[in-house]
Amino acid sequence: MTAPGSAPLPRDAFVDWLKREGASRYHDHHRYHVLMHEGKLTKLQLQQWVLNRYYYQTRIPIKDAIILSKSDDPAFRRMWIHRILDHDGEKEGEGGLALWLRLAEGVGLDVEEVASCRSVLPGVRFACDNYVQFVQERSLLEAVASSLTEAFAPDIMSKRILAWEKHYPWVSPEMLGYFRARVTRARADSEEAIEWIAARATTYERQEACVAALIRKTEILWHLLDCVYTAYVEPGWGPGGGRA
Amino acid sequence: MTAPGSAPLPRDAFVDWLKREGASRYHDHHRYHVLMHEGKLTKLQLQQWVLNRYYYQTRIPIKDAIILSKSDDPAFRRMWIHRILDHDGEKEGEGGLALWLRLAEGVGLDVEEVASCRSVLPGVRFACDNYVQFVQERSLLEAVASSLTEAFAPDIMSKRILAWEKHYPWVSPEMLGYFRARVTRARADSEEAIEWIAARATTYERQEACVAALIRKTEILWHLLDCVYTAYVEPGWGPGGGRA
Repeated sequence: MTAPGSAPLPRDAFVDWLKREGASRYHDHHRYHVLMHEGKLTKLQLQQWVLNRYYYQTRIPIKDAIILSKSDDPAFRRMWIHRILDHDGEKEGEGGLALWLRLAEGVGLDVEEVASCRSVLPGVRFACDNYVQFVQERSLLEAVASSLTEAFAPDIMSKRILAWEKHYPWVSPEMLGYFRARVTRARADSEEAIEWIAARATTYERQEACVAALIRKTEILWHLLDCVYTAYVEPGWGPGGGRA
Repeated sequence: MTAPGSAPLPRDAFVDWLKREGASRYHDHHRYHVLMHEGKLTKLQLQQWVLNRYYYQTRIPIKDAIILSKSDDPAFRRMWIHRILDHDGEKEGEGGLALWLRLAEGVGLDVEEVASCRSVLPGVRFACDNYVQFVQERSLLEAVASSLTEAFAPDIMSKRILAWEKHYPWVSPEMLGYFRARVTRARADSEEAIEWIAARATTYERQEACVAALIRKTEILWHLLDCVYTAYVEPGWGPGGGRA
């Protein structure tokens, strides 16, 4: 794009830039997702995706609490806090984390093992922890920009529900509640975040930092799938790369 | 007390230790509070307490969001998140921060100036920022323990309402909503936190760290009043110590 020191892009051009970079790098293009949506994952491969992705899910309310803590503005915090409530729920057994554990149960995993995160692949842990650290270290603007992968989630969720119902009929449709809940929430959340960012990325350098933050986030999600692919598809040596 | 390496104190002895250290060091003993409750503060002195203390108030949801971000446990986060909502409110104009700004209006301050925090004394800022940094750097247990000054808040709030109604009748009683709201909330919050801490401070070293965290917090609150006292009571040179 333009060199640093340039004038900021107009709002729509900036949002297009974000969406173009995000859409082209989003993990729906990853071969693990392609296999999943074509119904070509084995039960073990589907399970291991659910198990490993749960660690990512557990990091979401943590990074959202860090984002809250970076803001001085009660209005921003009021806008953002529901993300934590969405994942944690109002009481035991509610919220996105509990829905993900129901999904784990639905694919035949030991829920306690999933909840403990003890079988998560090391590389998945590194990538997810890097996300939390990124949000901790960077500006509020960059931290919020890194959340924008959500803008691409509704489509993948809708496709996923259809694909799972068709290809993995042994998973009870009622276990797919997490995906259904995210379709509308991810759309609303990302639109809110895009407006907030567009109003604050008032220099070219800030716009560039937002795009870089979103790219970093797509790398994190992508790496998660790389790790699961390497362990369970090709070469498929499992955790520890055959050492285990 | 006992030397490090000792066995942990029984639950009640540990809670007594916390309460003893907290009660003896709590800022209700500070001469600024004594003057306030005896009706001996001038309008300017009362105003400056409200203005400077507002900076402390603005740090509360930030440190509570940091505390949230330090926990892996959705049940803990569900317990803690309402503290942020209590200060920020569900919508504009609600919550503890908005109530404090009403108080500022009630004592005749320019609300916009108070909300900007631009006239806060440097030492007050240092102390409050130190609190946020402490919570950021220390363990979750210590961060929660530092919140226990709330256990002593209900009494001081009740006394404060009576004292203000008696001595500062020019402040409309309806502006004292913050103090009234805190009487019951601070009691419930601190009891919840004490139980959580008592169940987790399972070694003598951890109990000692909790007591140290609470002491640090009392020092922060105390220093805030020291700064306001020095600037506005004795020597009373105002912000900048006469340089301004």
